[in-house]
Formats: sequence, structure tokens, C-alpha cells
Amino acid sequence: LKQTIRPNINSLAEGILQGNRIVLSQAITLIESKLEDDQKLSAELLEKIIHATGNSIRIGITGVPGVGKSTFIEKFGMHVTGQGKNIAVLTVDPSSQLSKGSILGDKTRMEELSKNPKAFVRPSPSGSILGGVAYKTHDVIALCEAAGFEVMLIETVGVGQSEVAVKNITDFFLLLMLAGAGDDLQGIKKGVTEMADAIVITKADGDNIKRANAAMSFYQQGLHLLPPSASGWNPKVLTSSAMTGKGIAEIWNMILAYKTQATASGFFLRNRSLQNKTRFKYQFEQVLFSDYMKFETLKENFFSLEQHVGEGNISAASAAEKLLQAYHRAIQEERSRS
Amino acid sequence: LKQTIRPNINSLAEGILQGNRIVLSQAITLIESKLEDDQKLSAELLEKIIHATGNSIRIGITGVPGVGKSTFIEKFGMHVTGQGKNIAVLTVDPSSQLSKGSILGDKTRMEELSKNPKAFVRPSPSGSILGGVAYKTHDVIALCEAAGFEVMLIETVGVGQSEVAVKNITDFFLLLMLAGAGDDLQGIKKGVTEMADAIVITKADGDNIKRANAAMSFYQQGLHLLPPSASGWNPKVLTSSAMTGKGIAEIWNMILAYKTQATASGFFLRNRSLQNKTRFKYQFEQVLFSDYMKFETLKENFFSLEQHVGEGNISAASAAEKLLQAYHRAIQEERSRS
Repeated sequence: LKQTIRPNINSLAEGILQGNRIVLSQAITLIESKLEDDQKLSAELLEKIIHATGNSIRIGITGVPGVGKSTFIEKFGMHVTGQGKNIAVLTVDPSSQLSKGSILGDKTRMEELSKNPKAFVRPSPSGSILGGVAYKTHDVIALCEAAGFEVMLIETVGVGQSEVAVKNITDFFLLLMLAGAGDDLQGIKKGVTEMADAIVITKADGDNIKRANAAMSFYQQGLHLLPPSASGWNPKVLTSSAMTGKGIAEIWNMILAYKTQATASGFFLRNRSLQNKTRFKYQFEQVLFSDYMKFETLKENFFSLEQHVGEGNISAASAAEKLLQAYHRAIQEERSRS
Repeated sequence: LKQTIRPNINSLAEGILQGNRIVLSQAITLIESKLEDDQKLSAELLEKIIHATGNSIRIGITGVPGVGKSTFIEKFGMHVTGQGKNIAVLTVDPSSQLSKGSILGDKTRMEELSKNPKAFVRPSPSGSILGGVAYKTHDVIALCEAAGFEVMLIETVGVGQSEVAVKNITDFFLLLMLAGAGDDLQGIKKGVTEMADAIVITKADGDNIKRANAAMSFYQQGLHLLPPSASGWNPKVLTSSAMTGKGIAEIWNMILAYKTQATASGFFLRNRSLQNKTRFKYQFEQVLFSDYMKFETLKENFFSLEQHVGEGNISAASAAEKLLQAYHRAIQEERSRS
């Protein structure tokens, strides 16, 4: 007889705090689980390690397919570990909402880095709700920090929606760009360039150096047109090459400089606090809804009214009001019974 | 002494059902209001007109700045009104989340159409939460339908996140593209092209016709690579020119053909029902949270715990659980008192 073993939260927490990667991986799987019991355990676990979180620089990184993101992350990660830092690489891919595709083979994509003892590479769960995915990643960041990772790299694909989600859980946002992309399409990226703390023109090697430098000037001029960012940081534009290693050290130094400046100005903690708060409101809304759905009759009511709203027989607002009243009654009856 | 006049919901509803545009505009302003009293009135109003909604084809339209969206909408709108249909044009612009910018001067952008007695052009509220904006627009669509508009054009800007939102409240999604945009950036648009029921290559006139046709072939090939859409519809690629009027009639006919096919297959209503349901869940979550915040003490609790979560002293899940318990107690005490 197969028995489900309830993970021991204390030993998970202990293992994480000791930096045990196998335990860390197990804990991430728990966090990513959609089962209600697992979610409760996740909450317990997070509470146990929260005192050890927050001590990393969280870097969001994005760029279109073909920009050389994997090779960049590989080189960047190797440089950072070379500086004695532990780095964890996570991916967020909510673009797969429609196609159900996902970033495959992250470990093969970053072969050298995955084998590095100071690095941890972990793909994200795919195909879920945008906010949800990002916030699960937020929890995974917490676990990695508790396990001693000092640099977090949160990777996403360039579709716009995922960038916003990743921006909301990171400290520094890095946008990788190709030289020689047509001006025509600058518009589509405006929302993303606006979010960037730095733009890195990749593949700045060989015959491509000239184009990369031209693109750098182009974006430097473009960034001047943007409103100043809330952090007070002036977004930078750099070139890099994963082949020659050009730019990699400068990028890491720039991020360190950002952290120093943002910490001194107080923005760093203010921004994190705001992110935590935004996330908390979202999570609390989910908790309220789950609580509602725990009442069997209310759940049936919900699905029945949902159907009516679906068919356009009743407005969403009226239906919600009815459900709310039933919820109050159910909670009050619960009291009467107890 | 200035007095706030409570809008009479019955006369608003009546005016809308009679197709009175001044009343329609007032009602939209009410819907867009963030005041709690206005939101209650909005809910009442929506309930009163819901029987008259749903009778339009809702078309989402997007494209990067410079693609010629305004001129396209102008020509398309004039064609549709020429076919005896009433058309309403709404804009959704959540891309302004960061820059706080907004689509200015919609009426000047579409000068001819705005003066057309069979057309109604209305910019959206800007700078709010993504889901929120789109769902307010969903309500505005309902009002316009009740006022007799048979074609709804929901316009958005090409940043990815807004497209998903608009896709979720429309029947047909139209993507405008420029000829000659570099292949390099196809990746960034993948998420958007995936959503398109049709791609229209704009500015297919004069010297540009060749390029437009080449782009058409390019995208036709590209669309073959996408998984079949849930509707069973094969996405089309067309060229158009706002200058010569080329393609405009074909596009309208294609949309009619889509509606016929999707209605016959049952997808049309199934999709609308799903959209209504998704929106309902979102709205119900907001209603629960608002209800929580109506209890003065709970509201204080929320802000106090939010602060602790912000500072990382307590995990979001633990804090949410505490708030939930306090909510139950408050509802039960409310009962005891009554």
C-alpha cells in the first residue's frame, strides 16, 4: 500500500537553511504544487524561513528568442560565481498561457552553469495564471535566499506581460537586445524598455561590433526620452559578447553599483516593501475566495450563478452581491452551530 | 450650495435603451468612476440593461504605434456604418501603468468617424490595473450594446499585456502589422500573433504593395506553424490601405464569415460564456476584498499586517490567515449584535 508521506516542515526548513540543494528542490516542488494541503505546508515552510530571506540581489532578465539569453546567463553566472557568489537562475514563462509551450531543457541550455557548484538552475512551472506564476516564483526566491543564494536571476521571455510580472518581483531589470532590429517595432517594446534598468546589446563581437555600438547609441538616446525612473537610477546601455566575454564584468559591476545607490537612497527597501504589499493583497484575495469555496453549498451557489453570468442572464455585480450575502450567512451559522 | 445629485438609474437605463448618446456617455462615466457609491449604481444600471446586451460582434484591434491604427479604424468604421451598422470604438490602454501616459485625442485621431451619426468614439480610463481596465471596458461594451451598437471595436496598444486583456473581452482579434519589419523581433510578437484571428498588413499602397504582399506570404507561412485555435477558425492574413480603401470591405466580410462559422459551431457563445465566467470570478474576488475592508477594525488590521509583510517580518500566507480569522469573527459578531 502506497502511503502519502507528509513532508516534515521542520526538516525541510532546516535543510534549506543549511543550503542543501536536494531539500531546496523538494521544497520548490512543494511550493509549486497546486494541492491545497501542499499550499498549507508551503505557507508553514515560508513562515519558518522568512527570517533568512531578502539577502540577495534579484535580477530580472528578458529578451526575445534569438537574443542569446541562455549564453548570456551562462557567462554572467560563471562570472558571478567566479566572484565567490552563489547564483540561482529561475525562469518565468506565462507566455505559454495560450500555446501551453514552455521553456524546455533549461539545464541543457546552460550546461556549464548547471554543473557549477555555486549555481542552481531551475525552470518554472508553466501554463498557469500570470500573477500566480510570478508570485510562486517570489516564494521560490525566498527559499533560494534562505538557502544562501546571494544573486537571483529571474528569466522571462519577451512578450510584455511576463516582463511586468517579473519586474514586480525583482530589484533590477535587464533587457537584452539585438543590434540591427528595425525601428518599426520600437513601439512594441516601449512598455518593456520603460521598465529596464539596463539594456544590453548582445553579440557584440566580430563583424557585429559596429552595429552593436550603433544600437547602443540609439538606445542611449532613446532612454533620454523616458521619464526618470522611481529609483532615481539612470538606465544604462551596454554591449556584451558571450563569445569574447566582453561586457560581462561591467554588467555585474553596474548591478552592484545600482544596489549601492538604491540602498543608500532607501529605494531598494521601499521597492521591496511595495512589492511584498502588492503581492500580499493579491494573495489575500485568493485566500478569501478559497475560504468561500470551502463551504460546500456556497461552492454550488458560485458555480450555478457563474453559469447564469456566463449566459448573460444576470450581471456579474448582482451575482457577486448574492454570493456575498450567502457567505455572511454561512459564517454566522457556523458560529451558531459551534 | 452645490449638491451631489444621485443619478436616476431608471432614466439612465431608459435613455440607454433608447440609444441616447448623451445618456450613454453619462452612464460610461458612472461605470468608470472609482467611488463606491457610483460602483453600486453601476451594478444596478448593468442589471437593468443586461437583457439588451450581447448582440454585437466585439472586435479587438491592436498594432504598434505607426502601423496606422487610427486611419484604419476610421476607414473601417466608415465602411461598417456605410453597411448600415452602428459602430462604437473604445480604447484600452493599460500600457500606461508605468508612464501614466494615455492615448490622447481619440476624437481628433478619428475625425470623420467621430462626426458620423452611426458611430461612437470613446477613449478609456487610463492608468489603472490591467484586469480592472479591461473589465470596466467589458461593462462599457454592455452599455453600448444596450444602446444599439452592433459592432464594437476595442482598440489597444501593442505591448503584450493589454492584448491579452482585450482578447479576453472580444470575439475576434485583429492584429495590424507593418510590412518590412525585421525578422529579429518576431519573437516578441509571438504571444500576440498567436492570439490573432487575422493579421492585416497596413499601408499596402503605392511603392509599398510589393513589400506588403511579401509580408502577407511571410505571415501566412508563419500562421501555419501555430497550433489550431480553439474556435476552429484558420487565422487569415490580408493587406489593406487606408489611403486607397483596399482590403477594408474584405476585412469586414471576413469578420462576418467568422461570426457565422463560430456561431454555427457553438464556439461564439461558448467563448462569451467563458469570458463572462472568468470575469465574474475576478469581480467576486474584488467584492469579497471590499467587503472585508468595510469593517473598520479589519481594515486597520490589513494595513498593519501589510506593513509587516512589506518589511518581511511575516509571510504573506500567515498574515492572510490571521486576517481571514478576524474576518470570520467580525461577521459573527455582526450577527450577535443584530
